[in-house]
Amino acid sequence: MASEKPQVMVTCTAPVNIAVIKYWGKRDEALILPINSSLSVTLHQDQLKTTTTAAISKDFTEDRIWLNGREEDVRQPRLQPLLLCLSARKGTAGDGDALPLSLSYKVHVASVNNFPTAAGLASSAAGYACLAYTLAQVYGVEGDLSEVARRGSGSACRSLYGGFVEWQMGKQADGTDSIAQQVAPEWHWPQLRVLVLVVSAEKKLTGSTVGMQTSVETSALLKFRAEAVVPARMTEMTRYIKERDFHGFAQLTMKDSNQFHATCLDTFPPISYLNDTSRRIIQLVHRFNAHHGQTKVAYTFDAGPNAVIFTLDDTVAEFVAAVRHSFPPTANGDKFLKGLQVIPSLLSDELKAALAMEPTPGGVQYIIATQVGPGPQVLDDPHVHLLGPDGLPQRVA
Amino acid sequence: MASEKPQVMVTCTAPVNIAVIKYWGKRDEALILPINSSLSVTLHQDQLKTTTTAAISKDFTEDRIWLNGREEDVRQPRLQPLLLCLSARKGTAGDGDALPLSLSYKVHVASVNNFPTAAGLASSAAGYACLAYTLAQVYGVEGDLSEVARRGSGSACRSLYGGFVEWQMGKQADGTDSIAQQVAPEWHWPQLRVLVLVVSAEKKLTGSTVGMQTSVETSALLKFRAEAVVPARMTEMTRYIKERDFHGFAQLTMKDSNQFHATCLDTFPPISYLNDTSRRIIQLVHRFNAHHGQTKVAYTFDAGPNAVIFTLDDTVAEFVAAVRHSFPPTANGDKFLKGLQVIPSLLSDELKAALAMEPTPGGVQYIIATQVGPGPQVLDDPHVHLLGPDGLPQRVA
Repeated sequence: MASEKPQVMVTCTAPVNIAVIKYWGKRDEALILPINSSLSVTLHQDQLKTTTTAAISKDFTEDRIWLNGREEDVRQPRLQPLLLCLSARKGTAGDGDALPLSLSYKVHVASVNNFPTAAGLASSAAGYACLAYTLAQVYGVEGDLSEVARRGSGSACRSLYGGFVEWQMGKQADGTDSIAQQVAPEWHWPQLRVLVLVVSAEKKLTGSTVGMQTSVETSALLKFRAEAVVPARMTEMTRYIKERDFHGFAQLTMKDSNQFHATCLDTFPPISYLNDTSRRIIQLVHRFNAHHGQTKVAYTFDAGPNAVIFTLDDTVAEFVAAVRHSFPPTANGDKFLKGLQVIPSLLSDELKAALAMEPTPGGVQYIIATQVGPGPQVLDDPHVHLLGPDGLPQRVA
Repeated sequence: MASEKPQVMVTCTAPVNIAVIKYWGKRDEALILPINSSLSVTLHQDQLKTTTTAAISKDFTEDRIWLNGREEDVRQPRLQPLLLCLSARKGTAGDGDALPLSLSYKVHVASVNNFPTAAGLASSAAGYACLAYTLAQVYGVEGDLSEVARRGSGSACRSLYGGFVEWQMGKQADGTDSIAQQVAPEWHWPQLRVLVLVVSAEKKLTGSTVGMQTSVETSALLKFRAEAVVPARMTEMTRYIKERDFHGFAQLTMKDSNQFHATCLDTFPPISYLNDTSRRIIQLVHRFNAHHGQTKVAYTFDAGPNAVIFTLDDTVAEFVAAVRHSFPPTANGDKFLKGLQVIPSLLSDELKAALAMEPTPGGVQYIIATQVGPGPQVLDDPHVHLLGPDGLPQRVA
């Protein structure tokens, strides 16, 4: 490689995570420290992932970043704290001189998602986790990256691990104990399946950063939730996961999603992320479970109308059929289901009657079937780099 | 009058009330004692009222009741406690013997609303208040009727008074101190106007009796709200009303509506009374206020998607125009506005731009314009009786 070429180039992937105990609200806006702990499930990168290539070179004259093929302003607020934090970490590691590369080298970054950003799938968590992980690789920074990822987006720290991950809120003012750690690895609960129901919706009205800030300022219920409800729920949820207790896991997941959206509604002015289709999905899940006389399916909603469904492998086919029945595809019915293969299943007349739903054609655009997956990965194959030898984007995945 | 005719016949009317500090949840299901105090505005009977005729006669062989022209089962759960309660009241008054009529006489009751029950306008509150008030007249029972009305429907006790009414939750186990009383009379705040926005909706999914019971059993946020939030809000709201502070009144009304719906969402399974049109109305109000740089309009929602809007007389015309702009009538545009006359007004281009709403044709079916009004009334004109001399319904208003 000629000296004009990038000296180090690394490409990594990172997963999306879905919180089952929700994070909503910061106690420190600058350090991104949360008002309560949270717990998430890492989704498999075979279906949903961010891929990031970072290259550093003494010949680069400025930091540059391309997101989904389009160059963005590198001074965007969340990138600099992340780089600074990494820089500080490097400094304390004390091995800066041992490496040929310095943090003074400028960096080029290219990042792509393999899913539409518009799908509202917490792309920022995967994105910042991937950025933190890739930059740490390229600069040779070791150790826990929670703080680095967190500086980009709070929930990004949970995407640093596979399986089931908690983000402990911590107590320190400097945030050093506000870190992510694995509760159980990705192979812990092999029957667990995840369905992302992408809902047709108008543009999101309130971004989560501004939304949670307003909630912290105005919602008495959010403060109560963070202080008096979440701590016990963290303990409970951890136990359900460790014991693979689907009933407990599912019920608490739904309750916590509902409570998070309740605190959004208690915000002033109120925030509504759920729409009529979201509410129909909630109803569908409860009726499906009632019909079976047991909790076979759970929903959770983040800051948008899309539902994430948890169920077990023996229930996926029937529930997908129930969704297709309640939200008949308006076009491209063959593309309604993406991701993991699901054997087509017919609904029993009893279940159809129990659902008692007026079909809403097109309410759900499509379903992504996936499962629990591992944390960030370094890709060894040089063909996957998103930057060419010249340090510029060479392709869009 | 022949001896075969009813011996006493009385016709009364009673108003609808709209809570600005919401009642949701009972601490005693049998006595209908609430978990928190509440405060409401009594709407004017020129627009919304229940009319009830009660007749008693020694010749009647059974209690009978007709609601909106249709005979109902007199053993329906809420009617008997009301009669029993009235009976007990009569007993303690000690003047039973002084009257020619006895509670042992059977009663015939006919009741009609001048608004569609399906409009979801708390018809049960007006209905039971009217029933309690009319029966008290016909049996000659005096004194506070809070308990009698409450036995029918909790919030009915607030319809016993005009103007601004609080229902004190009370502390006694027997409910004797859980009573309604007037905070300010109907003439206290003459500029105040009320718009009922009737929203197109599917049938209500969760009745309020069952809904609030489930909320009390499952929502930690409701318990916190009742204990830690509402007491201060009652004091605050009373002050805003006494001082005719529209900004304070409006802001707290909106916050309390939102918090009530938040506790519904925190219920398990969750309860959603607001639909996408309700949420658009909320947005419209906040944008309207933001455009004016002051709180000129407030919304509140009960257990359904209809909005009740509070505003002042100088703002009614512009806000009605804003609603018409955002929810263009699909048919009968001339019947879009009922009730008080509102001078048609044009929206400024600035306001239209500030609302930035994609119009939703037909989202609001119609508007009822009304104002604060008096409590129940006895009608003197014998022509208004809903029962004929034979004690059977003679007409439907």
